[in-house]
Amino acid sequence: MTEKKPKRKVNKKDKQTKEPAPPRVAEEPQVKETVVFVGQKPVKNYVIACLTHFSSGSKRIVVKARGRAICRAVDSVELLRRVFLKDVRLQGISIRTEELAREDGRKANVSTIEIILAK
Amino acid sequence: MTEKKPKRKVNKKDKQTKEPAPPRVAEEPQVKETVVFVGQKPVKNYVIACLTHFSSGSKRIVVKARGRAICRAVDSVELLRRVFLKDVRLQGISIRTEELAREDGRKANVSTIEIILAK
Repeated sequence: MTEKKPKRKVNKKDKQTKEPAPPRVAEEPQVKETVVFVGQKPVKNYVIACLTHFSSGSKRIVVKARGRAICRAVDSVELLRRVFLKDVRLQGISIRTEELAREDGRKANVSTIEIILAK
Repeated sequence: MTEKKPKRKVNKKDKQTKEPAPPRVAEEPQVKETVVFVGQKPVKNYVIACLTHFSSGSKRIVVKARGRAICRAVDSVELLRRVFLKDVRLQGISIRTEELAREDGRKANVSTIEIILAK
């Protein structure tokens, strides 16, 4: 499977200015960002969630997961990029540790992942 | 215990060519890089593997995993950074899809992760 890099479209609004478009989108005050939490449901559910958000205007989606759902988050993103939205860019991945309080009062550390997708 | 990838040796045949080694660190001919493959063993095994490699002179460790071991790779890296080596930097994380041939001839796609650690 080949992952295509998104073709950078020429922004029509920028035609008036002579300079090339600045790094980010300047005319938009805020980028519409959505968070998709990945849990224990089947991978396709999260793929559909991402597709829905992108088609309803989101420019950035942050896919978050923790613990064992991390693999599922990676699977969802890869399936999305490979099959459904080949022009989606991976903007960044970060991993972290969260401290959770268990029911018996003890603390548990759980790893988390955040994958940022942009269209 | 730990599965090591063969360290990429400098190919002796290349010595004849005059060109300097590309981008990498200039004063050091090669950065000592090691690969740790994360599989189904307990997290602490992989943490120990990383510790051992760093203490034996590795400057970069690439932690690789695929499928369900991805969570374990993230756990290992987080445990290492949180408890054992607080000065380790996360240089990058990448996710990809690999195509595997199953025994019955069909193909399966499996997600992979690579986490690059540097000291």
